[in-house]
Amino acid sequence: MPFSYPRTIHFADTDAAGVVFFANYLSIAHEAYEEALAAAGIDIARFFADHGLIIPISRSTADYLRPLACGEKIRVTVTPTALSENTFALDSTLSKLGPPEKVAGRIRTEHVCISSQTRDRLALPPALAEWVKAG
Amino acid sequence: MPFSYPRTIHFADTDAAGVVFFANYLSIAHEAYEEALAAAGIDIARFFADHGLIIPISRSTADYLRPLACGEKIRVTVTPTALSENTFALDSTLSKLGPPEKVAGRIRTEHVCISSQTRDRLALPPALAEWVKAG
Amino acid sequence: MPFSYPRTIHFADTDAAGVVFFANYLSIAHEAYEEALAAAGIDIARFFADHGLIIPISRSTADYLRPLACGEKIRVTVTPTALSENTFALDSTLSKLGPPEKVAGRIRTEHVCISSQTRDRLALPPALAEWVKAG
Amino acid sequence: MPFSYPRTIHFADTDAAGVVFFANYLSIAHEAYEEALAAAGIDIARFFADHGLIIPISRSTADYLRPLACGEKIRVTVTPTALSENTFALDSTLSKLGPPEKVAGRIRTEHVCISSQTRDRLALPPALAEWVKAG
Repeated sequence: MPFSYPRTIHFADTDAAGVVFFANYLSIAHEAYEEALAAAGIDIARFFADHGLIIPISRSTADYLRPLACGEKIRVTVTPTALSENTFALDSTLSKLGPPEKVAGRIRTEHVCISSQTRDRLALPPALAEWVKAG
Repeated sequence: MPFSYPRTIHFADTDAAGVVFFANYLSIAHEAYEEALAAAGIDIARFFADHGLIIPISRSTADYLRPLACGEKIRVTVTPTALSENTFALDSTLSKLGPPEKVAGRIRTEHVCISSQTRDRLALPPALAEWVKAG
Repeated sequence: MPFSYPRTIHFADTDAAGVVFFANYLSIAHEAYEEALAAAGIDIARFFADHGLIIPISRSTADYLRPLACGEKIRVTVTPTALSENTFALDSTLSKLGPPEKVAGRIRTEHVCISSQTRDRLALPPALAEWVKAG
Repeated sequence: MPFSYPRTIHFADTDAAGVVFFANYLSIAHEAYEEALAAAGIDIARFFADHGLIIPISRSTADYLRPLACGEKIRVTVTPTALSENTFALDSTLSKLGPPEKVAGRIRTEHVCISSQTRDRLALPPALAEWVKAG
């Protein structure tokens, strides 16, 4: 079972078209990633700060399938996949709660572990590698 | 007891100083307002759209007392006060969970009910007036 | 020559890693799209509101090639390509000013023209179709 | 003459009410502050990062006088005032371009210079103190 994050759509997520701004689908997917890491016992504040080793997102793809309005309830599932010893992908699905539940967006992000000084690739930290492997 | 909204600080809330960007304290207070209205049975999607009657914020004050970092857990309390038949204030407090719990920010917003066409003041809709009165 | 939009990186664009939050590359690309439409004489406020015909983004891809820090100067180029009579793509490149100029991100978005009531596909409005065709 | 920053309202600034989200008036005022500092020769990327001395905002007040829609042109003026050797205020005015020009918002922020380690107050750095004094 993938990790599942419940979320309510907020007014600040929306734009003048009345629904969630497209870039905010990615922000919401990132929240789910943070919650999944925290649930795996990883210290988020430290993880996302720069302590020599950083894990930036190198690529994202997003399919926007349904609009989401303020007050709507969604859940976001997150599934990691190892791509190499330095990289992994996350597949996130944003679904409007039902019944019937309906997919509103699918996001894939690719993450690469590097040195913030040299930009050389580094192995994923053990706790993260374990979380990715557990899928 | 005021309405209380639990919230985790997300990476997107932060800025390059490593903590929540000052304007996002106001966005987080607004989320708590939305949750309080929803808990009172008010249809949020409809409430915040423009259907002739709108309730914009006319004024805000904010005291930023403590920084908030990614992953930290807070709760936001919201207390409404009627100011006139067309206006009300919300006092929101953002507190880092403890023990001991510590206040990180205090936000006050003033809201005025108007016609979106004429900008004339209108009485608050009954469900909202009742929520404000219940304080 | 593609349309080119100059932009300075703001503090609000950044996150606790000290550089622009990944989803904000897409927001910045959207700003360039808005500026390109305005330069083509299209009324932006009306364009992005819902007047029966809407043009949501159905898909995005982004490659994040270099971090961007607060105060840095970039330019964003935007090139539209027609995909069908109802759809088009935008290829945007975010480049840090030089010399030498360096590409920081490449964004592709796909846009589809639909009825906001029926969600049926509609032909692009003439002014937009002309802008896309001029490429 | 106060520093003046031209700005176009972007789609990402707006919310489902069709106009700029209230908290984004503060973000836009902060952009003008950044531009004013840069124009005074201050290195923004360094200024807003944490290098032991930080200058967080301790308080803000905002009056929201007119809605702002996507595509509208505004200018933001910024006037600093010294409050003590460790603190200063910024008064920002967001005005819709005219003629006639119309004030859309007034923002006041208070800033305090502290050690990020001890949270003790520190004197403003000389370049900043000079900019504040020049008013």
